[in-house]
Amino acid sequence: MGYHESIVEGRNAVIEAFRSGKTVDRVFVLDGCQDGPVKTILREAKKQSSLIQFVKKERLDQLSETGNHQGVIAYCAACDYAEVSDILDRAREKGEDPFIILLDGIEDPHNLGAIIRTANQAGAHGVIIPKRRAVGLTAAVARTSAGAVNYTPVARVTNLVSVMEDLKKEGIWFVCADMGGTTMYDLNLKGGIGLVIGNEGDGVSRLVKEHCDMVATVPMKGDIDSLNASVACGVLAYEIVRQRLRG
Amino acid sequence: MGYHESIVEGRNAVIEAFRSGKTVDRVFVLDGCQDGPVKTILREAKKQSSLIQFVKKERLDQLSETGNHQGVIAYCAACDYAEVSDILDRAREKGEDPFIILLDGIEDPHNLGAIIRTANQAGAHGVIIPKRRAVGLTAAVARTSAGAVNYTPVARVTNLVSVMEDLKKEGIWFVCADMGGTTMYDLNLKGGIGLVIGNEGDGVSRLVKEHCDMVATVPMKGDIDSLNASVACGVLAYEIVRQRLRG
Repeated sequence: MGYHESIVEGRNAVIEAFRSGKTVDRVFVLDGCQDGPVKTILREAKKQSSLIQFVKKERLDQLSETGNHQGVIAYCAACDYAEVSDILDRAREKGEDPFIILLDGIEDPHNLGAIIRTANQAGAHGVIIPKRRAVGLTAAVARTSAGAVNYTPVARVTNLVSVMEDLKKEGIWFVCADMGGTTMYDLNLKGGIGLVIGNEGDGVSRLVKEHCDMVATVPMKGDIDSLNASVACGVLAYEIVRQRLRG
Repeated sequence: MGYHESIVEGRNAVIEAFRSGKTVDRVFVLDGCQDGPVKTILREAKKQSSLIQFVKKERLDQLSETGNHQGVIAYCAACDYAEVSDILDRAREKGEDPFIILLDGIEDPHNLGAIIRTANQAGAHGVIIPKRRAVGLTAAVARTSAGAVNYTPVARVTNLVSVMEDLKKEGIWFVCADMGGTTMYDLNLKGGIGLVIGNEGDGVSRLVKEHCDMVATVPMKGDIDSLNASVACGVLAYEIVRQRLRG
């Protein structure tokens, strides 16, 4: 499948990317650069709330594929992001209780791709990811999702906790995956639900966990710490599917 | 974690690897090479039933890291393989019905690693993989398993079907994951069980499927074909866990 890694280099090319409506995930800008075109880029980046990183020339040289970055390199998403409201609309259109998967800092493109694929198959209405410290919809993610990115909306938000607060007003309950919680079979996971999966190494962050209504634990009989994040997401998503189907 | 990708190059080094008892997954030998050391290598490789591939010089040059392969490059496993009998012994020691995961041609190291991790956490007694057309216990697999390779035995067999026939005599039933089977919740997955997961692209092969007692289908509501192989394995393994725990 033809997902292109969109790396855009050079001032005019990056300005053009913003103006043509591309979703710019992050921009690397040469530290100290203050001229007109760079100011335009920073303004556009703030408007779209792209991540801006000021870096040294050596870092830009390292990232550059063309060798002609002119102090600016932008990374565009391989596909378009949705809004959180699109995800809720989707549940409404289908006449189903919302089922959303929230990722609290998934960094591995293979995991994000596999999770979007799982969300699609488990009938989740969408996936929400944070802007910071997380992988976005890169070409690798699109490929690993086996095409699911074209069907399942992925929204990218600045603040996961405030989005959770808003969604609670819509009657959605949040369950996060963590150790030391309630065995997943003993929880009531029916109704509108947001399943929160944490970072590969650190798990769910403290603040996000505090905003969850339930902590679900997958029974573990093993000698190691945890399951792979995309596998844990699959196991929990399908416990939700089972409870919805079989009560 | 320090899993070393063991690539051994050069005639003496490869002979030494065999003699020191290392598990050589596959050997690449220069096509037409017939001298004494190469004959020794081929004899040792056959004894260990390592895969032997005769290739052109260009291919060896491409694979070589030292630039000094002398016509032979061997890939050693990052950890030791177990025997199928070790897996059965493990179930017996724990006083549990055997629970084995069989992989019919998993090629992606990330998937194999995640599956060994899942096997460990779901309380499976071991994993069985085929020698041909499948990834072995490489360093990448060991790393992705998050250390589970050190606890959960992985056996590597020449013929998956004949191993299944032998295991059936031990009272083990086989269930494979495929579309068009029975919804997993409606199957009885208690008792001694072998869960068969197919190749990432092609699924379970015809012959292996014919030797399965049941075909389990994960309910799919999506627009795409299937789940990621390691996620599907996790979902099915945990349906087995649920039935064992909760009936």
